[in-house]
This record gives sequence, structure tokens and C-alpha cells, in this order.
Amino acid sequence: MSALFTRILCPIDGSANAEAAMEMAVGLQKAHGAELWLVTVFRHHSLLEASMSMVRPEDPGNVDDSLRDYASEVSEAGKKRAIEFGADPVRAFVKRGPPARTIVAFAKDHDCDLIVLGSRGLGDIESYLLGSVSHKVTSLSECPVLVV
Amino acid sequence: MSALFTRILCPIDGSANAEAAMEMAVGLQKAHGAELWLVTVFRHHSLLEASMSMVRPEDPGNVDDSLRDYASEVSEAGKKRAIEFGADPVRAFVKRGPPARTIVAFAKDHDCDLIVLGSRGLGDIESYLLGSVSHKVTSLSECPVLVV
Repeated sequence: MSALFTRILCPIDGSANAEAAMEMAVGLQKAHGAELWLVTVFRHHSLLEASMSMVRPEDPGNVDDSLRDYASEVSEAGKKRAIEFGADPVRAFVKRGPPARTIVAFAKDHDCDLIVLGSRGLGDIESYLLGSVSHKVTSLSECPVLVV
Repeated sequence: MSALFTRILCPIDGSANAEAAMEMAVGLQKAHGAELWLVTVFRHHSLLEASMSMVRPEDPGNVDDSLRDYASEVSEAGKKRAIEFGADPVRAFVKRGPPARTIVAFAKDHDCDLIVLGSRGLGDIESYLLGSVSHKVTSLSECPVLVV
């Protein structure tokens, strides 16, 4: 049993690409005897974005709640799927913030020694403009990043 | 023994970052019973670049030979270091071409199922302008890419 990796972090967003990455993360977990941690990041609903939208929510707080609820569903479904893949042990977390920075900070704060993520998530249109989340994570992370 | 990876490709350029990636590639090779292939890519010396240089080589062919010789030295030294890390089996190759595309094509042509490379190689200044080789490889590759 190699101790190359002890805690693998796998960000999930409900996309097929993230699920493929999670399956590989589970394979690595088994081979290296590591913990698997899943994290789902949702963005804070900004008032700036709301002000540019034609349809404005009456209460921005409710939007945040909806986003958090959706992220929790993605997180729960991901954990269930990871267990189906044979993940053990596995923990799932939900965090709010800008995706790449939040993922990298979470990995650092919790001593994760590998991040495994899909090359493209759901934010495809945004990624054409701003670079993909996987690219940003790869650029910012202090630990190795496996892009699946 | 997991069959998650069977042939790991590790591009090396003589940088410390590439050596760190190679050490991790050797660890993965051991854990997964994979082959390790090293590849050193050197650029074709273009006449366009020569024409913009204040000092022109009399014979561009000689420049190509020098670059190939240097790449061969990097390749040999890398293979020796990989064996010191415990790599077995390991093969080393030298290729000419644009780095990212050449690495990705080599991986595809030879059925490599994982590329392990450093986040930054020697071409740091260029990477600020054009994006790093690791980013391009991650974007272009059809197989998973581990950025160390």
C-alpha cells in the first residue's frame, strides 16, 4: 500500500465529467489507501449580478438558500454514487464561494494531498471567457491536481 | 494491484519541477504496476525565429543538432534518475515539435493512459504570454493529466 496520497479531494458539480473524475478518484483511493473527500461549491448570489439581470429576485437571501439547497442535493447524490463505486471512507462537504479559489483553499486547509477533478464542469460558457475551473485550480493549487 | 493505469507518460525537460513530477510518476507506477515512459521534447529551430535574432546561425541544421543533443542528454539523465527512484520498467524517448501538442500526440499514439508533468517547466517567460505547457496539455489531452 503506497502512502503517496492520504486524503484525496474531489470537487463535484453534478456533471458527467465530474462523475468520471470521481470514479477515478475512488480507484486511486483504493490503490493508495486514502480518504476521499467530496466538495460541492456554490457561488454566492451577488447583488451586482442581480442588478444586471432583467428579472430580480425580491429577496436575494432566498436565491442563496436555493443555491445551497441545490448544492446539497448534488453533494448527497455524489456521495451516494461514490459509495456505489466502492469509496470507503468518504465524506461530502458543501462550500460557498468562487469555485477554483474555494476548492484550492479547502484542499490546503484540510491537508488534502491530491485534487481530482473533471476537465470541464457545468460552467462551459463561462470557461471560454475566463478559463476553466480545472485550469484555475491547477494554477493555484499547492498540491498535485489530476484533471480527468 | 490496480489496473487504473497501465502506461504512464512523464514529459521531462531537466527542470526541478519535472523531476518532482517524475518522482510522483514512479510512485504511481509502483502502486499501479504500470510502465513508465519518459519523453523529452525539443523545438524545431525555426528560420523565422532565426530571422528575428540578431545573431544568426550559419547553418540552421547545426542548431537542430545541438538541440537534439541537449534533449538526448536531458533524456538520459532523466532515465537514470527515474531508475534511482525505483522505476521499472522505464523507457525514454526524444521527440521534436511544439511541446504540448507533441506530448499529447505521443500519449495518444502509444496508448498512454496517464500523463504526469510539472506545473511549470523551463519555459516560464513564454508561459506568461502563451499559457503553460501543462495547461495546454491538460486542455488537449484525451487521457487524464496529473499536474504536480
